[in-house]
Amino acid sequence: MTNVDMLGMLAGTMSSLVFLPQVIKTWRSKSAKDISLLMFSFATISVILWLAYGIMIKNGPVIYTNSCVLILSVVMLYLKLKYNK
Amino acid sequence: MTNVDMLGMLAGTMSSLVFLPQVIKTWRSKSAKDISLLMFSFATISVILWLAYGIMIKNGPVIYTNSCVLILSVVMLYLKLKYNK
Repeated sequence: MTNVDMLGMLAGTMSSLVFLPQVIKTWRSKSAKDISLLMFSFATISVILWLAYGIMIKNGPVIYTNSCVLILSVVMLYLKLKYNK
Repeated sequence: MTNVDMLGMLAGTMSSLVFLPQVIKTWRSKSAKDISLLMFSFATISVILWLAYGIMIKNGPVIYTNSCVLILSVVMLYLKLKYNK
């Protein structure tokens, strides 16, 4: 594996975890008033498109990264709708 | 351009805009208490890694998408720190 491949893997791993701190914070605080529903709606649609693209070009890292992000996006949509007030 | 290329471009365009609704919402409401600082810190580090990767593999869409996300992430970090209370 080259240094460039490793950088790509590191970038992919980091981005698959971006929503995790928000999920943990909202789950603990039970408050999601300031969070944009549209942001997580856009994120969910966007990762579904990336997943479809990854499956079509048979690219493992794209599929793996976006599967993680999809799960976290859907959890955040649920938390936003549950704790909106 | 194939359908697969178009799907990739659509996915890239969508994901470059994911943070935009949050920036608009926070800028209007001037309230960012519920937003995770760690999420946008992770996002900023992650897009810097993607940008470096995109420059190294000379991939235009990766560079373009992550430049947009980097600007929005930095704006959100600023808004979060400004309107945290």
